[in-house]
Amino acid sequence: MDKRNLLYEGKAKKLFLTDHEQRLVQHFKDDLTAFNGQKTGSFKGKGAINCAISTHLFNYLESHHIPTHLIEKSNETDMMVRKLDMVPVEFVVRNIAAGSLVKRYNLKEGLELSSTVLEYYYKKDELNDPMMAESLIIALDMATPEQVRTMNRIATKINALLRSYFERRNLLLVDFKLEFGKFDEDVVLADEISPDSMRVWDKTTKEKLDKDRFRFDLGNVEKGYREIMKRLLND
Amino acid sequence: MDKRNLLYEGKAKKLFLTDHEQRLVQHFKDDLTAFNGQKTGSFKGKGAINCAISTHLFNYLESHHIPTHLIEKSNETDMMVRKLDMVPVEFVVRNIAAGSLVKRYNLKEGLELSSTVLEYYYKKDELNDPMMAESLIIALDMATPEQVRTMNRIATKINALLRSYFERRNLLLVDFKLEFGKFDEDVVLADEISPDSMRVWDKTTKEKLDKDRFRFDLGNVEKGYREIMKRLLND
Repeated sequence: MDKRNLLYEGKAKKLFLTDHEQRLVQHFKDDLTAFNGQKTGSFKGKGAINCAISTHLFNYLESHHIPTHLIEKSNETDMMVRKLDMVPVEFVVRNIAAGSLVKRYNLKEGLELSSTVLEYYYKKDELNDPMMAESLIIALDMATPEQVRTMNRIATKINALLRSYFERRNLLLVDFKLEFGKFDEDVVLADEISPDSMRVWDKTTKEKLDKDRFRFDLGNVEKGYREIMKRLLND
Repeated sequence: MDKRNLLYEGKAKKLFLTDHEQRLVQHFKDDLTAFNGQKTGSFKGKGAINCAISTHLFNYLESHHIPTHLIEKSNETDMMVRKLDMVPVEFVVRNIAAGSLVKRYNLKEGLELSSTVLEYYYKKDELNDPMMAESLIIALDMATPEQVRTMNRIATKINALLRSYFERRNLLLVDFKLEFGKFDEDVVLADEISPDSMRVWDKTTKEKLDKDRFRFDLGNVEKGYREIMKRLLND
């Protein structure tokens, strides 16, 4: 299926229309950005790594009855996906304190949370993606109460599935971000799950392997991404 | 019952120990502060107005089976209250877009929200009272899941009761802040409900009558507070 006009260009991905009205091509770029685009970089092959990891994890989740937008991997950097009406909310699931959680509440990085934390952020660059209350998603008509309940349930189930999947590969799933789209009344997991959108540490050494290597100039960004890919794709 | 040592001094109230171990005196000060203490002011009699309004509304809520910390009004500026183990979270209930909601999400002030919004803020001046997820209250062991459900239910019930109480007095309850304390396994409404902690507009003219008059130098701060008191205490 041919890629046609560019529908949307984000910081790390492009979405193309196709000749099938209900399908899009999600292309993974090599670009890396952090701090709402204030820091930029890239490495050759990053798009392919994120495409491979996302496809692999989405297939794994589908096999556990999580509905995703993935139709198939088209090539190294492109996924064919279902066209959805996106919910403009980032769902952030956290198991261990890191990143903005540490900063905002003055917690110790690495603190194991006694239960899973689920945060919501309004996806709006101009407003710097502000945190939002669950009830505001409904009050601003971004989703129905039933859809919010479903997205929460899916997010919790994904966390349970991925945590143990990662642990079996000696990886700690610290936190990750999900986005959903609507298709009629249903909600479907969309976007990506990649080292750009999650924090992953080596379980033994606690070494950071994800985009934090780029954010905080820890070096070996590509090596970290490749290590995550190697372990996750090893069935 | 005698006030004894000062237990805690906040920006607008003081809490004193009493000779009864389970009881405190909550004293309402004349001080006004805004923007996390960056702006300060006062007017004579503000403490008495807030004490009168809080006592009146807490009695009204008690008569509708909402448990509160109020034991009795001791004098013009003092309430005798139950000593509680405070939950360090501000519950903000919103019916109409105003204040930080307008700013954070670029909404139009006065927008009627299609359903009630309930936000949580971690009460910590040093961190500038950051918004927090409901699940973080539990993960940081500030309250149990059952207690959070109870506080949500009480907040929603208070909103329903007060909205119609205010409407009958030609007042719009735009938003308000609640705090809760724990007593064994139970949760009890604490703190205050006053023009310091809620936004109240005249229903017809939409004139602001609450602390926003002070925050934004609208003038007639005392007049606004007195108008709210007059209408609310008029049974």
